Formats: sequence, C-alpha cells, structure tokens
Amino acid sequence: MNFKEAKKRTTREFEEKGIVLTEGEKDRIEVTDFGLERLDEIGLQLIVYVNNSRYCAKEMVLFPGQTCPEHRHPPVGGSEGKMETFRCRHGKVFLYVEGERTRDRNCNAPPGNEEYYTVKKEIILYPGEQFTIRADTKHWFQAGKEGAIVSEFSSRSRDDLDVFTNPAIER
Amino acid sequence: MNFKEAKKRTTREFEEKGIVLTEGEKDRIEVTDFGLERLDEIGLQLIVYVNNSRYCAKEMVLFPGQTCPEHRHPPVGGSEGKMETFRCRHGKVFLYVEGERTRDRNCNAPPGNEEYYTVKKEIILYPGEQFTIRADTKHWFQAGKEGAIVSEFSSRSRDDLDVFTNPAIER
Repeated sequence: MNFKEAKKRTTREFEEKGIVLTEGEKDRIEVTDFGLERLDEIGLQLIVYVNNSRYCAKEMVLFPGQTCPEHRHPPVGGSEGKMETFRCRHGKVFLYVEGERTRDRNCNAPPGNEEYYTVKKEIILYPGEQFTIRADTKHWFQAGKEGAIVSEFSSRSRDDLDVFTNPAIER
Repeated sequence: MNFKEAKKRTTREFEEKGIVLTEGEKDRIEVTDFGLERLDEIGLQLIVYVNNSRYCAKEMVLFPGQTCPEHRHPPVGGSEGKMETFRCRHGKVFLYVEGERTRDRNCNAPPGNEEYYTVKKEIILYPGEQFTIRADTKHWFQAGKEGAIVSEFSSRSRDDLDVFTNPAIER
C-alpha cells in the first residue's frame, strides 16, 4: 500500500464508521510510515482536530495488524512532556506500556525490529475503553485483525520531539 | 422529560450514532438542567471521558432545540481559565460567542431569560466543523431541530467554577 492508497482507505474507514470530517480535514489526513518504508506493518494514519499550547485531539486509524512503534514524549522546555489518553472507538487495540511484562502477549514486534520494542505490559482496548499514558514513558500499540479507530486526547502535541526506541525512525 | 428519561435517551442517541460507551460510562452520564427545572429547553447531557490537570475530553448530547446557557470559564489559581474546542459530530449546533452581533440569528434565548444571553455573534457548526473558545469569554449554544452530538476538547475542566450570566443557575 502506498501513501495515497492509505489516505483514501483512511477516509473510507472514517466514513463507514460515521466519523464526519470536513473536506479540508480529509485533505489534511496524515499518513506516516515513520521512515521505515513498511507502511502495511509499521505506520499510522491520523487527523489532528486541534493542537494548541494547552491541549490536543486527534483521530487515528490503524489498519489490521499495523503497529505504531515504541516511543516516549520527553519533557519540553519546562513542561513535563505530553500526557495522552487513547480511547478505542472501533476495532481492537493492543497497547504496550512500562510495567510488569504480560505473559502470553497477543502481539509481536514487527519482524527484525524486536530489539526496539522493550515495554511488554499489555493493555487491551475494546470500543469504549481507554487508557492514559503518563508523560515520558515508553509505549507502542498494534491494531487487531479488523484494524482500529482510536481517539487521542492529550496535552500539547510536539510529534517532532518524540523519542523513538528505534534510532532509524524519523517522524 | 425527567432526568432518568434524559439519561436513557442520551444512551440511545450515542448508540444510534455508533459512539460506544462502556457500561460504567453509561452509568456516569450526567444530565443537568442547571437548576432551572426546564430541562427540555435548558440543559445538557454529557459523559466526561477524561479530565486531569492538563486536558479534558467530553461527549455531549443536546436534544432538539435544547440550550446550554451563557457562561464563561474564569482564571483559576494562576491558570488562565478553561479553553475549549467544540466539534459537532452529528446534527447542528448554533454557537454564540463574543464579537460583532450577527443579524438575523437562528436562535432565540429561552423565553423569559433574554437578559442572560448577551453575546450574539453566531457560529453555525455542521458535522465535522468545530470552533475554539478562548478562556474567560462568554458563550452559549443551542441544538438545531434534530438535536446534536458535540465533542468537547479542552484544558482542565472545573465545571463548579463556571460563571453563568444568569445568577439563578447552579451547576
């Protein structure tokens, strides 16, 4: 799948689930493969609704089995780093966070990248369920077989400052 | 309509639009008539998804023609007051904010309460459209004929500190 196809598919996913975007927002849908060129496996599609100095809200689409790679949101100039709440709207999301490792986890890291997925406490989010990630703590997530739509509510977002465990990643 | 009926109807509205809540959230749906005992005309139904020291997210239901009365979010102990973004998800919302008064506005204040609705710049929000309210500025809103579902993204929410133009209101 290329970026253009991913953007089109994202628009369709939102439409099918009754999540309405303006035409301007449809144009602004972001697709990222985090510079790894394995979009089907490692990537994220999203629309930023609002991002100001105080809060941020996004709607994200993950395709079936797609992974958002491990990262953290470090402190930024006096502020303590982004804190965020993931709310599953549709599908299923497997979220991995710092803490005691879960045995028999549902997901594997993308093949060949295992060393960059270090946190292994599993949180499963079904529609209507949510989880809040403390600032500056590592996390990654993967969609279930049917993909997922996830709302993100957070403090100010500075994606360019995210710190990924995999040094090859560029956001 | 009494509070119990309003809560049930809110649950149904969310379900019909594919907005999934957990059972715990359904129990926690808030219905307020702002102490005016005219819920059909003046009231709000909502679920708070998250509200912490940094950000807040809610989903609100307005029944047809229902009004959320004029208020502002004042500065709180060193912080500049709540800033918020209303995003219309379904239906239509008429939002009134500070600024040049709009001629031929779509909504009237609830009968008898005209003096408590002082801001008259009209913003119409259709599904997918949103508007951000600066801290400490007056605003009120009313749903169109088919009602509305509105997401609110904001800085920390302190509903108990809201300042309503109508002194009879208790939140």
